[in-house]
Amino acid sequence: MENAKDLRYAKARGHLSGRDVNNPTAAMLVIGDEVLSGRTRDANMYHLANCLTEQGIDLLEVRIITDRPDHIVASVNELRKSFDHVFTSGGIGPTHDDVTAEAVAAAFGVNIAVRDDARNLIKARCDEYGLTLNAARLRMARIPDGAELILNPVSAAPGFSLGNVHVMAGVPKIFVSMLEGLLARLPAGLPLISESIEINTVEGELAVRLSQIAEGFDKVQIGSYPFRKDGRFGVNIVVRSKDEHQVKATMAEIRHTFADYISG
Amino acid sequence: MENAKDLRYAKARGHLSGRDVNNPTAAMLVIGDEVLSGRTRDANMYHLANCLTEQGIDLLEVRIITDRPDHIVASVNELRKSFDHVFTSGGIGPTHDDVTAEAVAAAFGVNIAVRDDARNLIKARCDEYGLTLNAARLRMARIPDGAELILNPVSAAPGFSLGNVHVMAGVPKIFVSMLEGLLARLPAGLPLISESIEINTVEGELAVRLSQIAEGFDKVQIGSYPFRKDGRFGVNIVVRSKDEHQVKATMAEIRHTFADYISG
Repeated sequence: MENAKDLRYAKARGHLSGRDVNNPTAAMLVIGDEVLSGRTRDANMYHLANCLTEQGIDLLEVRIITDRPDHIVASVNELRKSFDHVFTSGGIGPTHDDVTAEAVAAAFGVNIAVRDDARNLIKARCDEYGLTLNAARLRMARIPDGAELILNPVSAAPGFSLGNVHVMAGVPKIFVSMLEGLLARLPAGLPLISESIEINTVEGELAVRLSQIAEGFDKVQIGSYPFRKDGRFGVNIVVRSKDEHQVKATMAEIRHTFADYISG
Repeated sequence: MENAKDLRYAKARGHLSGRDVNNPTAAMLVIGDEVLSGRTRDANMYHLANCLTEQGIDLLEVRIITDRPDHIVASVNELRKSFDHVFTSGGIGPTHDDVTAEAVAAAFGVNIAVRDDARNLIKARCDEYGLTLNAARLRMARIPDGAELILNPVSAAPGFSLGNVHVMAGVPKIFVSMLEGLLARLPAGLPLISESIEINTVEGELAVRLSQIAEGFDKVQIGSYPFRKDGRFGVNIVVRSKDEHQVKATMAEIRHTFADYISG
């Protein structure tokens, strides 16, 4: 048993070698009372995960927390020290429960105040729609000192990057539009390449041989995801790596080993 | 500006008074490489959030992490000290990438080994389906010392509770079935009561008055969620509290204040 344990731990460290190409790392912080209460199902995490995978930025942790400022400050400070990038979602609108911008400024120990460029973006949109630039809207022009704006093509009120923390809106359509602009200015890494195959048996039948295959390829992650479809059991095997050659070689080995369980 | 900031911080502490009824607190830990890579969209979090809200257990944080054992150990130890309950999802199957049970045992500093009651549950299922109790399946009978089993009506291999950490499978159907049995043995708190109303205007128009209403009710959380439907802008206002009377009073005030923007 101790051997099995050591092998598994070595394997987990092996996962890291999948990141030896020095891809940037990332965490996401969702400020989401409404997700924690089960009211809404987060969509931004799923979108960000896919965009980062494409761009070769390794998303290694997501945290969903309440909108308590002390909790936001603590989480931002913990994550920004551990990861190259921190992407936040939620809490930068005009209402009383939007406390993210202020909390991020507090985490960095910098001032936050209305900034002309942010104010002008919001004012232009207000003029266009015949709306008043009232106190609530002006709150959205508050930007921490030293931050760079993240443009919001949907509704004008910008997000911002402060150091390695990128602060975006929680409304999915706005989050998507902000992220597109932001990612264009972040350096890309090597994208993760993945292939998958359906094996027509239960996990317990293939686990031992799959584990042996995993030992042989140190730069791939092999994930095993059981499913049940129309009363039939099966397992999706997903092979991921930054090294396309290793993905191909691993998939060939899996196809050979489990030929009896693969359709078509 | 300083005043506004102080008020907001006081308000956030006010949120906590919503928990003065001493509801149990909870965090969720999703072991989910496949969620972080964007391959799958987590369903268990959404399900757990709703079940806990019904049962009066306050879910205050969710973390999604990779299946690196050191990361699991660190997260389990951090969360179990901060919250009354920690619910985990994923990583307890028969394959090489299932490292959760071992990592949770390591977090508590206890041994993990095949236990007869768990073994018997899995063996009975194997006998029923004519399957072999091989090494991979036997791995799922490994239970940390001192843990209590969480039954798995779907596929037999159990989860377990070790102290305040409840370890369950990631396959949604199994997670749901395990959680049902587990929640039946956890003490309930006061459920969160929520009501919502659609306001037919943009957030910037109602934020100031909404903030004033929020100041007047210290035991409610008022959330504001903008939407766009069929080209029409609106805001969902959600009022949540453990105190039904306060929810009703707050909703009445909101209906009165924004009468001009409410349909029907």
